Amino acid sequence: MFDPVQVRSQFPIFQQTLPKGLPVTFLDSAASAQKPQTVIDAERRVYETHYANAYRGVYRFGAQIDDELEASRDAVRMLLGAERVEEVIFTAGTTLALNMVAFGWGRKHLKAGDEILLNLMEHHANLVPWQQVAKQTGANIRYLPLTPQGELDLTRLDEFLNPRTKIVSVTAMSNVLGTLNPIRKLADRAHDMGAVLVVDAAQSVPHGIVDVVQQGIDFLAFSGHKLYGPTGVGVLYGRRDLLNRMDPIIFGGHMIEQVHLHESSWAHLPAKFEAGTIPIVQAIALKTAIDFVDGLGFDAIHAHEQDLVNYAWQELHQIPGLKVYGPPPDRRGAILSFSIARAHPEDLAQLLDRKGVFVRHGHHCTMPLHAWLEVPATVRASFGVYNTREDVDRLRDALLFAREKLRLKAV
Amino acid sequence: MFDPVQVRSQFPIFQQTLPKGLPVTFLDSAASAQKPQTVIDAERRVYETHYANAYRGVYRFGAQIDDELEASRDAVRMLLGAERVEEVIFTAGTTLALNMVAFGWGRKHLKAGDEILLNLMEHHANLVPWQQVAKQTGANIRYLPLTPQGELDLTRLDEFLNPRTKIVSVTAMSNVLGTLNPIRKLADRAHDMGAVLVVDAAQSVPHGIVDVVQQGIDFLAFSGHKLYGPTGVGVLYGRRDLLNRMDPIIFGGHMIEQVHLHESSWAHLPAKFEAGTIPIVQAIALKTAIDFVDGLGFDAIHAHEQDLVNYAWQELHQIPGLKVYGPPPDRRGAILSFSIARAHPEDLAQLLDRKGVFVRHGHHCTMPLHAWLEVPATVRASFGVYNTREDVDRLRDALLFAREKLRLKAV
Repeated sequence: MFDPVQVRSQFPIFQQTLPKGLPVTFLDSAASAQKPQTVIDAERRVYETHYANAYRGVYRFGAQIDDELEASRDAVRMLLGAERVEEVIFTAGTTLALNMVAFGWGRKHLKAGDEILLNLMEHHANLVPWQQVAKQTGANIRYLPLTPQGELDLTRLDEFLNPRTKIVSVTAMSNVLGTLNPIRKLADRAHDMGAVLVVDAAQSVPHGIVDVVQQGIDFLAFSGHKLYGPTGVGVLYGRRDLLNRMDPIIFGGHMIEQVHLHESSWAHLPAKFEAGTIPIVQAIALKTAIDFVDGLGFDAIHAHEQDLVNYAWQELHQIPGLKVYGPPPDRRGAILSFSIARAHPEDLAQLLDRKGVFVRHGHHCTMPLHAWLEVPATVRASFGVYNTREDVDRLRDALLFAREKLRLKAV
Repeated sequence: MFDPVQVRSQFPIFQQTLPKGLPVTFLDSAASAQKPQTVIDAERRVYETHYANAYRGVYRFGAQIDDELEASRDAVRMLLGAERVEEVIFTAGTTLALNMVAFGWGRKHLKAGDEILLNLMEHHANLVPWQQVAKQTGANIRYLPLTPQGELDLTRLDEFLNPRTKIVSVTAMSNVLGTLNPIRKLADRAHDMGAVLVVDAAQSVPHGIVDVVQQGIDFLAFSGHKLYGPTGVGVLYGRRDLLNRMDPIIFGGHMIEQVHLHESSWAHLPAKFEAGTIPIVQAIALKTAIDFVDGLGFDAIHAHEQDLVNYAWQELHQIPGLKVYGPPPDRRGAILSFSIARAHPEDLAQLLDRKGVFVRHGHHCTMPLHAWLEVPATVRASFGVYNTREDVDRLRDALLFAREKLRLKAV
């Protein structure tokens, strides 16, 4: 049974009281999630008891670190439903992982006239690298339009997907609209055209089951810090046959097989894509984060967050002038971005802070989406496993307070 | 007064006893250093009290994180003697930092026939990226030879440095030979030819004073984890005017100014080179690591490590058949790589482990250097602030034990 109060009690950051006796109402998990004590302790334990650099030492600490890293790699494999442990590459985060695909795969395989299919809701991390690859290769980027509700307009897929399409890259869950995209369907359509499907799973991995094999995903990227893990570590998943045909983009120690004066050869997977010292301790603690969400169960997490989104949807719509962007609650993840007529998002975020309600404002690294929404910025509330309906109540009350402060009450 | 026993007491990993009552004799700091309690606690404190993503939130945790990151950036600036805080770029480590220079600067500014001057002692991270850039641009790599003692042969610099030389990239301290390279002299000679000087400072930063301005360094890279800081974070320093003329190589959130559908523009320094979520907590804790070494004082650190290297040089040379590679103690940092006649380095490392003596064996990511040394692998003992003369005694005794086990005694 999922008990959010018990879950919350595992996060030390929520055990404090802010000035004026306010609780911490953290509604910015889409930017980065808080960490349970077990994750914090996992890092500390490594440093305090058996820390060493990885993959190079035969002494006992080094061997233990290697074992723990490979156990974490296997935990990621299971989390993603991947077939092989060498398909899991530790990276510095989602952004580096997506850049690795864009430059390591895209620059190698794209030629002039080829097409990359994106869409208007993508995060800059899944957009700007492709722009660069398009410039370098002569490929063209096309943008699948969105429906008025902020979902991919699949009725127009035939116009945008064709034999020239070599790459379809899409977020599994919008970091602004919360939109959940139909990955399996996109995979099938992409594969029919001979394209590979790249999935930005930074937002989706913390909230629901991913299965790269069942969903037909070719490449997938996510970050540890959004999954209740440490900062500094992320993952690139790639199908083995594709990774074997992909170039590394970062070169140095560990990723090589032989280095001669004027040429070098690369190591096998996954080392080929892990140049230099990886974020060792963070990669080990990522397993603890995976154990944490596995312990709660993704079905329970999903049900809990769905309840919060439903409740927040209902409560926010009580606020005059408030507009939520994106699809209804049953077709979105645990994110609600909104605006209030005549209120600047930054002012709202600052006024909410006074009540201990922590939300993000801005373009959320999605300028093209905000251009489409015709607003320069929004306020975003996003939820994690530790949030409760009381958090939603405090958000609602804080927004009413902000309206008052901004003298919007009479409208 | 530098008291190694007191220093050592600040590192929790040394407070344990291994099976059979053995102390931890950690002689692998050149691969990665252990962490003082203050560094471990700095990370924990952030996660437990005010964690948030960086650079995007106006709420109080976000603002505090931003302040702490900028305080850390300024601590790095002071550590390196840099003039401007925006010249300090947080990266995932030395390897990524060197790749950023190779591809962001080299690919932009090199043309066919230009030359990159390296030398035979470089780590793969300062070698393989340049091979790739050379292939992509038509530039040529030249290797300055070494003297028989494993130092740069400066008498031959005129043969290798010329107006075609656009980049000189060199380690400040060899990770195998311990050799300290004359950075100021190389900077002057490089600048006379119109070349930029790139310094791999991964090994040197933990052991001595760096001053990028006084030493004429154009780009410099180092890693936090070798400086008693966390894994997952490193630094690229670049002179502002050069960074402004360098391209980013990783694209995504935070590094942009504007993103349109088919083109984007970049943010100012340092954001331009910090795409995505940086290793936030590790970058903050890097300041704690810098405070730690600053508190000890680099003069005291240097004197202590010099004493250890002198003593180890003397003690190791008592062991029959042992050969130390590289220059004498007064011209090297706290690293001693060696071999013992007829003993396989891996066997030695494994036998030393039985005595709780942790050393590294292998090519240490320097295959061209080992080809020059005419050995496939060496054993490396490297020292940090927590090492003592007793550690050296245990290394010596463990090597004698290993010789016995390997039945080398009679020779």
